[in-house]
Amino acid sequence: MDRLGRYLPILHWGRTYDRHALTSDAVAAVIVTIMLIPQSLAYAMLAGLPPVIGLYASILPLMVYALFGSSRTLSVGPVAVVSLLTAAAASGVAVPGSPEYVAAALLLALLSGLILVGMGIFRLGFVANLLSHPVISGFITASSLLIATGQLKHIAGIKAEGATLPEMLASLFENLPATHWPTLVIGALAMAFLFWSRRSLKPMLIRLGVPLSAAALLARTGPVLVVAASIAAVILLEPGVAVVGKVPQGLPPLSMPVIDPALWTALLPSAFLIALIGFVESVSVAQTLAAKRRQSISPDQELIGLGMANLAAALSSGYPVTGGFARSVVNFDAGAQTPAAGAFTAIGIALASLFLTPLLYHLPIAVLAATIIVAVLSLADFGALRRTWKYSRADFSALAATLGVTLLDGVETGIMAGIAVSVLLHLWASSHPHVAVIGQVPGTQHFRNVLRHSVICTPEVLGLRIDESLFFANARAIENVIQHEVAARPQLRHVVLNCAAVNSIDASALESLELVMHRLSDAGIALHLSEVKGPVMDRLERSDFLHHLTGQVFLSHYHAVEALAPEVTCTSQTAHPAATSQNVALQSAALSP
Amino acid sequence: MDRLGRYLPILHWGRTYDRHALTSDAVAAVIVTIMLIPQSLAYAMLAGLPPVIGLYASILPLMVYALFGSSRTLSVGPVAVVSLLTAAAASGVAVPGSPEYVAAALLLALLSGLILVGMGIFRLGFVANLLSHPVISGFITASSLLIATGQLKHIAGIKAEGATLPEMLASLFENLPATHWPTLVIGALAMAFLFWSRRSLKPMLIRLGVPLSAAALLARTGPVLVVAASIAAVILLEPGVAVVGKVPQGLPPLSMPVIDPALWTALLPSAFLIALIGFVESVSVAQTLAAKRRQSISPDQELIGLGMANLAAALSSGYPVTGGFARSVVNFDAGAQTPAAGAFTAIGIALASLFLTPLLYHLPIAVLAATIIVAVLSLADFGALRRTWKYSRADFSALAATLGVTLLDGVETGIMAGIAVSVLLHLWASSHPHVAVIGQVPGTQHFRNVLRHSVICTPEVLGLRIDESLFFANARAIENVIQHEVAARPQLRHVVLNCAAVNSIDASALESLELVMHRLSDAGIALHLSEVKGPVMDRLERSDFLHHLTGQVFLSHYHAVEALAPEVTCTSQTAHPAATSQNVALQSAALSP
Repeated sequence: MDRLGRYLPILHWGRTYDRHALTSDAVAAVIVTIMLIPQSLAYAMLAGLPPVIGLYASILPLMVYALFGSSRTLSVGPVAVVSLLTAAAASGVAVPGSPEYVAAALLLALLSGLILVGMGIFRLGFVANLLSHPVISGFITASSLLIATGQLKHIAGIKAEGATLPEMLASLFENLPATHWPTLVIGALAMAFLFWSRRSLKPMLIRLGVPLSAAALLARTGPVLVVAASIAAVILLEPGVAVVGKVPQGLPPLSMPVIDPALWTALLPSAFLIALIGFVESVSVAQTLAAKRRQSISPDQELIGLGMANLAAALSSGYPVTGGFARSVVNFDAGAQTPAAGAFTAIGIALASLFLTPLLYHLPIAVLAATIIVAVLSLADFGALRRTWKYSRADFSALAATLGVTLLDGVETGIMAGIAVSVLLHLWASSHPHVAVIGQVPGTQHFRNVLRHSVICTPEVLGLRIDESLFFANARAIENVIQHEVAARPQLRHVVLNCAAVNSIDASALESLELVMHRLSDAGIALHLSEVKGPVMDRLERSDFLHHLTGQVFLSHYHAVEALAPEVTCTSQTAHPAATSQNVALQSAALSP
Repeated sequence: MDRLGRYLPILHWGRTYDRHALTSDAVAAVIVTIMLIPQSLAYAMLAGLPPVIGLYASILPLMVYALFGSSRTLSVGPVAVVSLLTAAAASGVAVPGSPEYVAAALLLALLSGLILVGMGIFRLGFVANLLSHPVISGFITASSLLIATGQLKHIAGIKAEGATLPEMLASLFENLPATHWPTLVIGALAMAFLFWSRRSLKPMLIRLGVPLSAAALLARTGPVLVVAASIAAVILLEPGVAVVGKVPQGLPPLSMPVIDPALWTALLPSAFLIALIGFVESVSVAQTLAAKRRQSISPDQELIGLGMANLAAALSSGYPVTGGFARSVVNFDAGAQTPAAGAFTAIGIALASLFLTPLLYHLPIAVLAATIIVAVLSLADFGALRRTWKYSRADFSALAATLGVTLLDGVETGIMAGIAVSVLLHLWASSHPHVAVIGQVPGTQHFRNVLRHSVICTPEVLGLRIDESLFFANARAIENVIQHEVAARPQLRHVVLNCAAVNSIDASALESLELVMHRLSDAGIALHLSEVKGPVMDRLERSDFLHHLTGQVFLSHYHAVEALAPEVTCTSQTAHPAATSQNVALQSAALSP
């Protein structure tokens, strides 16, 4: 039961489900359903799919997530960024609009579902940590710009193409003379109203006496109002704008993804990216919402939940889904208590598929495009560029690389470039470790960097604090620094490596330490270690290193200096400033601070 | 002059060049030349090229390296592993034996030369650190097995194919019935003599009264003796074995690599691997030899030297070259003093190309194969598997992955798999950081892990030592650990993060810290930092974090505990064992040691 409960969170919350939770969940479900109908149509269009696929992807996946998901308020379904990734991947193997394209999207749901479930079973959620905040931030901002630019053609009622920002802009300008004015008017009005409702509808409603929480939720219904108004306008005015057209009525047909090894291989990398990005987006939303109510989520169980939801999408004519940010916040604010709210939302969308699709016939494409543009532009965060630049050039580079490559070369290379840059910069930083020559703070047992503090040193003993774990990327740099420091000190007899900041030593670094020890030994200098941590010491004891160590291992750096240069520590309590600064002057200034 | 000297080391050593150095270099050059003639023919054959290309690659590149290289004793030229990589890359774009294949090898020399010089100019030598010791060790062992197996067909005088070990073995067994017995006899005799001369020739010569150093060098001439004897045997006995055949007489013709963007793009990844592996092999040999004479080499200058040598190979009908291990050791042992020894070796090879090639006509292919097999098998290090397994499972995994994938799928995927595994394992280790709850060692100002030491703690103050730099891969894990520890302590008022081991905090981790601080603040708990390092503090001061920090930053953890829980530090000097263990018992045992 417990083991089952680990994989089926519904067994926990289902046992205490009561009427109060049922009422809260049902209310939230009604509101989310109203929000999700235009969203699901719009995001399917963004993915290059028939709008009805968006509805299909909002039924069974939500039910399945309610069984397996660990977040109580996450709203799963089509989202903008995953739709964009789906479009990029599917258009690489099929022509948009063709049955093969729809099949490719279905297959992406299957593959990313399998990947997510697999990662969940093997508890590989940590892989998502490869996506650093700057990379995610750059990717989301670039994606929202790409998505918004890609929708402008629908607003203007023209044709345009391109997968990168320059291509899109060039194609837009080229086709601008063909602008269809009635479409532009409807699109522009819809955008203007949506931007206004996002900013000003809530304050206005509050001024009109609507309670705060109700005003916040009503303000989210802007897209539905626009959809309804535009359908009415098209029916009454017949302006000849592009409309959604016939949407098949009924529940999603069961579907079976194609078994084609070549296609599977071609789509696998994209499916992995979709899985990873969908997971990261979902988990960060879910964690933020859970923290607000002092609940917790399990990242590994989220992998299972999202994976099963995608498998459900693959079996019910859908396309890849994940937890959406805006929709989850609405679900939370509307009072959703349990994942049952998601299941109720699914019922709402199922009813819409059965009965509302004839009404959607006259819905203008431009209005869907306006919905997308307004939704995604709120995700762009240009302030992050400035903040990150101020804090760290390395993080800024990762952000800028992701943003730039995504805009100029597309989403998949963009995210890969971001991951590569952040991993390489991390390795680069680790391979140029900070090493400080340390001396004793007078009157204490503490040792500090000679370049930053007034401390006591001695020419026979060199204390070096290595501020990094020792591993393959920095093993050689440490060798060089030690040799360089030793060469500057002719009287040297002992080198003490302070390992307080060394959290691990891998096999490459161990070979380097052996080499350093032999070279020092040839020069009559003993190598000592101080403040070696427990896990590191355990590891060293499994090698031969400690057997032929030329010096000793000291519990504290103070003990080391006390044993190797007793006259210094004895006089340290009474050392006067002149003596201290003279000793400091013996130190080389070659190291950067 | 100094700036020029940085890029042209010859300007340094050339100024003090004297008759003593000249004599030493000339003697070493004669010995290396004798060793290099069969090697260069054999390695060219291993690369799938006409044997004469090996001679060509041993003339101009050596002269150029003498001008630009920073190692005094490195012997540049064709080597086994780079020849294998060249074969793998060139056979991907052309049929072995065709003019296109030779052109591809030439282009690989050009591209890897450009990559090396570029990396040298931009001082990117650190990229080579990506190749950890276990990856190099696994790759060299796997390569030597692949090379040796690939040469067995020449020993048996049969045809066989395959790029992976299973393919090679299958093809060998299939063709075994066609064994050409005279070839097998010659090949087996050559191998037996070479193995014997490597093991027993030196001790035998010493017993015969030859001085130690001369015996060591004479023992290295085994391959030349075998070559001479086998040529004589073929001329006298005419056994009908496969021979090298006509080798063009004369100096290398100038050559111009083809300009074909598609071909360049196709070969670029392979050229990068050749450059990287050639550089790593070279630098480790050069550093080992330099350390023996207390000289030093400059890794960035080595990039220039090896890069220029490869560009020279590309312009003189050669193929990729690098510093060879065995040959450099011979050069060193023979007394080479300066890179001039390399230039003299080049003259020796040029004379051989002019006058000796007719003699090589009757050299059996099987003898060259025997030379290769004996040379590469000495590089295989199976003991590394056991040693690394004992020291660290992670390092062992990287070694085993490299070894396995190289044998089963080929050299390029093998090295990529090794790099990927070691980088991922490093990130995995960093993303599961060691965090210790710390308490005060009675009577001292030191704080240690409560699980390993008998220390004093207090229920209001939680000291956590984070044993890892904070960055994107571990930001989330730290959040979880802190929340978990805090949840177990209802009386908690202060959390003090001991940052002695935190060498950097990136933007992702800063966001996590902000999040942790807000969550703790909601629970009425203040977040403090202690022992923050200078570089980390500088960085934090550039963000808003310190402005809204709910606690303080303390110079030492002792100061923090003294300020936040004064009664504990006051009584610590007199705390008796019972009190200590009681305090320790308050600590959760949830953390692993």
